[in-house]
Amino acid sequence: MTVHVATTTAPVNIATLKYWGKRDANLNLPTNSSISVTLAQDDLRTLTSAATSESFEKDTLWLNGKEESLSNKRTQDCLQDLRDLRHQLESQDDNLPKMSQWKLHIVSENNFPTAAGLASSAAGFAALVVAIAKLYKLPQDMSELSRIARKGSGSACRSLFGGFVAWEMGEAEDGSDSMAVQVLPLDQWSQMKAAILVVSDLKKDTPSTQGMQLTVATSDLFQERINKVVPNRFIEMKDAIIKRDFTKFADLTMKDSNSFHATCLDSYPPIFYINDTSKKIIRLVHSINSFFNETIVAYTFDAGPNAVLYYLEENEYKLFAFLYKLLNQVEGWEPKYNKEQLNGFKSIFENDFKEKIEFFMDPELYQSITRIILTRAGPGPQDSKECLIDEETGLPK
Amino acid sequence: MTVHVATTTAPVNIATLKYWGKRDANLNLPTNSSISVTLAQDDLRTLTSAATSESFEKDTLWLNGKEESLSNKRTQDCLQDLRDLRHQLESQDDNLPKMSQWKLHIVSENNFPTAAGLASSAAGFAALVVAIAKLYKLPQDMSELSRIARKGSGSACRSLFGGFVAWEMGEAEDGSDSMAVQVLPLDQWSQMKAAILVVSDLKKDTPSTQGMQLTVATSDLFQERINKVVPNRFIEMKDAIIKRDFTKFADLTMKDSNSFHATCLDSYPPIFYINDTSKKIIRLVHSINSFFNETIVAYTFDAGPNAVLYYLEENEYKLFAFLYKLLNQVEGWEPKYNKEQLNGFKSIFENDFKEKIEFFMDPELYQSITRIILTRAGPGPQDSKECLIDEETGLPK
Repeated sequence: MTVHVATTTAPVNIATLKYWGKRDANLNLPTNSSISVTLAQDDLRTLTSAATSESFEKDTLWLNGKEESLSNKRTQDCLQDLRDLRHQLESQDDNLPKMSQWKLHIVSENNFPTAAGLASSAAGFAALVVAIAKLYKLPQDMSELSRIARKGSGSACRSLFGGFVAWEMGEAEDGSDSMAVQVLPLDQWSQMKAAILVVSDLKKDTPSTQGMQLTVATSDLFQERINKVVPNRFIEMKDAIIKRDFTKFADLTMKDSNSFHATCLDSYPPIFYINDTSKKIIRLVHSINSFFNETIVAYTFDAGPNAVLYYLEENEYKLFAFLYKLLNQVEGWEPKYNKEQLNGFKSIFENDFKEKIEFFMDPELYQSITRIILTRAGPGPQDSKECLIDEETGLPK
Repeated sequence: MTVHVATTTAPVNIATLKYWGKRDANLNLPTNSSISVTLAQDDLRTLTSAATSESFEKDTLWLNGKEESLSNKRTQDCLQDLRDLRHQLESQDDNLPKMSQWKLHIVSENNFPTAAGLASSAAGFAALVVAIAKLYKLPQDMSELSRIARKGSGSACRSLFGGFVAWEMGEAEDGSDSMAVQVLPLDQWSQMKAAILVVSDLKKDTPSTQGMQLTVATSDLFQERINKVVPNRFIEMKDAIIKRDFTKFADLTMKDSNSFHATCLDSYPPIFYINDTSKKIIRLVHSINSFFNETIVAYTFDAGPNAVLYYLEENEYKLFAFLYKLLNQVEGWEPKYNKEQLNGFKSIFENDFKEKIEFFMDPELYQSITRIILTRAGPGPQDSKECLIDEETGLPK
């Protein structure tokens, strides 16, 4: 049997201007535009191979080694859109194999543990769409494909680009203008780094789709956020990114995280994603910025207690002097940094900063942080030599 | 020497529609109207005696046995207003002693420990103003006196009435129409009870005056709260109280607490008053109401993590079945309830509810709650036979 195969990676992205609220839940159309930073794939990426063959019997997905259903509506919508585009090609060229009528095998793997508590659906749907588009040899560009990924998981559309990405909410009822665009390519602000503090959390959060619907339906402050606060912030944040103005970017990022969580708290019953550990991190970030009398680091929190800290490479030693002091017992520093570098952060703290600190540094903070992921802004989906599907059998390797 | 003495009590009040934001910090004029329930004085009250004599040398305050300064501007403003009103009387009647020119001795005691973490400034300023007004034999009614108490501490104006009280924000620049009025007297809804859960908190909160200023200056969502959300809620809540509609009253109370804390979180840097224990209490209250398929209890949080739960006497056994199950190790049940009553709560839970519970009840919740204060709605300032000042010496007894 002939098996056609294509493989791609896709990155995780973390919003700095939050997507929260759907104006159309079927099409995943948002109530506001959003902005994100795409993260490097050494640390966080999905690798997906897509295969098709006349002899496949059913659409099948193997995710992290386990067979999973492809039957949920969101995934089916993505597959249908991709098959429709393939069908257009086939109807223009009779020589093309009729892949649009064949079943698909998808094999997908994340390089990070689910236990990290990081939403992998964005990278997952982005990789799914790009792998199949590649398999089908579709001519559509990334923005056009992002419309399809959006139907799978809203924020997935932003994982089709590297660097700094905006998801333009659009106005059309059919969602045709709700897609991702690049704000600034990675190489123009590649100094942007990120440290993810994975916070222990026993409780399961309100799932984000359900949380969004509750906020839209019940928060009295939400309309102000989407009608006034975010539209202004969207313009300001794009401008800050284009000008590579970290101070402005950081302020807007922190304010928007707080605003999003404020509307969660204003929902009824209220939704809580950030916890007391998250708050300690927020206070720490403001204290560090005050200490340096300069904004060197920004926090942002998605629908959970984990903190993502953005900072510029040039300020890493300033930030890490504090972070390593507080979190040296937390997993994740090695092998990113060697002993000498880590001792460097330690001695900067002890020699240069320790005596001047006037704020409270909680020596037990590390106990509620399970892991630190040290990463940076990264590129969009990449080709990969690694293929997860056996081209003879069409099954996972 | 002749010493003139007068004594009063004043209650604590807990807002159900929150006061948060000053439009004039000097005069304590609020950005929005607010509503509160006055609490019973068996549990929480300030007792204040005021004395004056031609021979006193300086204005002096003894608070809970310690001499304290009366020199802060807010207190001086209150004293000046009261002396001005006294002076008007003296200028109309030459026979009156010229108290307006004499110094004051004030002795004040709370019947609850400061450690309870309950803001005592409202009861304190209310008692100060009423005691002096009584000493001066002022003809002004409670609403008129509430304008003076307001200058001492905004929420103090609401402690001049019992039952259900509104603080009308007013419009005048001089604050002449910013005062408290009765919404419903205590005896018309005396079934209203309150349970205060005092939550452990090591950190000092942002002081509320400072917190308010930060919210007014930095929260993007705050204008929506004061211009739209609260004005509607003020009308709705007064209506719910007048109709004694507990469900409506409870919903509005919980929503307003969340809305207030949401604007704190939306301040920059964000302010956090509620903590993870507060959130557990919020979730518990929603779970209990869901369990009964009826709103039997409402939470509200001031500028700190302590919860105040409002409920009607007729539902006490339903609420206490849960609260006593979870918090029986917490101080405060006895001697309010005897062993038999407490066993009653226990057996209702074990026999009637336990099997039907589908939500998580945290068995360790009691560890972060230091005390439960079981109280109810109560009357306004009261005369007292107890006098804290020695009429011979003019000093504290």
